[in-house]
Amino acid sequence: MTIIDGKATADIIKKEIAAEVEQMVNSGAKRPHLAAVLIGHDGGSETYVKNKILACQACGFESSLVRFEDDVTEAELLACIDRLNRDERVDGFIVQLPLPRHINKQRVIEAIDHRKDVDGFHPINVGRTALGLPCFLSATPMGILELLKRYNIEMTGKKCVVLGRSNIVGKPMSQLMMQKEHGDTTVTVCHSHSRNIADECRQADILIAAIGMPGYVTADMVKPGAVVIDVGTTRVPDASRPSGFRLSGDVQFDEVAPLCSAISPVPGGVGPMTICMLMLNTLAAAKGIYYEK
Amino acid sequence: MTIIDGKATADIIKKEIAAEVEQMVNSGAKRPHLAAVLIGHDGGSETYVKNKILACQACGFESSLVRFEDDVTEAELLACIDRLNRDERVDGFIVQLPLPRHINKQRVIEAIDHRKDVDGFHPINVGRTALGLPCFLSATPMGILELLKRYNIEMTGKKCVVLGRSNIVGKPMSQLMMQKEHGDTTVTVCHSHSRNIADECRQADILIAAIGMPGYVTADMVKPGAVVIDVGTTRVPDASRPSGFRLSGDVQFDEVAPLCSAISPVPGGVGPMTICMLMLNTLAAAKGIYYEK
Repeated sequence: MTIIDGKATADIIKKEIAAEVEQMVNSGAKRPHLAAVLIGHDGGSETYVKNKILACQACGFESSLVRFEDDVTEAELLACIDRLNRDERVDGFIVQLPLPRHINKQRVIEAIDHRKDVDGFHPINVGRTALGLPCFLSATPMGILELLKRYNIEMTGKKCVVLGRSNIVGKPMSQLMMQKEHGDTTVTVCHSHSRNIADECRQADILIAAIGMPGYVTADMVKPGAVVIDVGTTRVPDASRPSGFRLSGDVQFDEVAPLCSAISPVPGGVGPMTICMLMLNTLAAAKGIYYEK
Repeated sequence: MTIIDGKATADIIKKEIAAEVEQMVNSGAKRPHLAAVLIGHDGGSETYVKNKILACQACGFESSLVRFEDDVTEAELLACIDRLNRDERVDGFIVQLPLPRHINKQRVIEAIDHRKDVDGFHPINVGRTALGLPCFLSATPMGILELLKRYNIEMTGKKCVVLGRSNIVGKPMSQLMMQKEHGDTTVTVCHSHSRNIADECRQADILIAAIGMPGYVTADMVKPGAVVIDVGTTRVPDASRPSGFRLSGDVQFDEVAPLCSAISPVPGGVGPMTICMLMLNTLAAAKGIYYEK
């Protein structure tokens, strides 16, 4: 059984990116520049943004952070996005989610120039993802694909079951896994209204769990020899940790792992890859790979 | 066993649209206006465009046709699209596919203002479809959803198998069928590289065949009581017809129909609904429902 090590893979990719950035800089190009917009002081969001900035440093990117308090108006936020859209020094930027309730999330996402939308959330990037065209892919599904490829997991013609239909994981993951250009698997998507989820899961050669329910996938739901990817990152209280919580995946790792040919753990699996894919998207933005600058 | 009558359903919907258009006109609004761009003289394309114009008449829409010869340059076509984008009299327009090989199809599709893209092929509409947001849906999957709804087919939690992963049917169909806002089913997508397609199909409560292989779905692939939707419209030679061909679906209708709780035939099933959905999209464009005008 192989443990799919997202941390180690992400470290390798960041080194690859850093090497390429040094080449670019030596050739006279400017460093890729990722900006992040952070609203309020949510602990999770603070951590994510901090880790994104650290990843920029590891990759040799410039980074910048724009902060707003929770009471920022939608108009102020949209004005900031407009500035970032027009700022030629910024190659790509993200607005860290979630947003305060008084701000229309979809309006904010669609205000971002799709050529700088390194999160891949703008409808143009979502649409190009669905069509199998080159674009900024949503980072989590992109990271999972990258893990499957780097671990030489055979995909073409295999059966893949995706648990969850969120806009940022389940839906794009299923699209990528069905496309000839990417997974080329036979894909089934299960969700809260699905019947016989255990039966569906047992058919999977590749099982991708992204429902955010700690320990949902048990040993009886997994076919022996399957590849299991755990996308769950639910914070569950844990008094033994200094932070007061630990991250829990959607898979009962201890009982499922022995059945698998390969499995990604939580933490250290998909999570580190997600930020790393944001770096790859930023590099692609700097190089103008998907869209003319 | 119910025959899902797309022709009769489309006729009802066109009457509903015509009644609404008369109300709009009586209230002082202008008639919805669909323009079509037709390149060359391909028999299929000529027929499709003719039928679209006839449907416009049935719905009380204005229509207009812009014709080019096969040797039109991409620049000429893009200039035409630009004019139609800016023409306030035109609510929506389509560029009939396929295009001559020397023209970049994706560039043409992306040149269309997404607010007038009543075919739903622009990445913004594809992306909003994938996200479950209101937009111009691709007409064929939209027509299938409408048939399923009008025939009161129970969908939530059912198992749906989609055969085919084309950008205009299989992919958007699978997205719509998985979404809470639409089908809310457990969806499996099979394609040319899938293994055990017959086994997958036999699990389907709703089987949607869109692979363009005449008679591919046989009785042994269908669960008794299933709903079968046949999207195939392959022209097969038939010397007994004045046209020299007949349309053949993907399903062996004679042997499959007796097993089904409901089935859509070819012709007279999905086909008439597709053009009808183009009319609904054009009406929505005229009313500015999805996008501000």
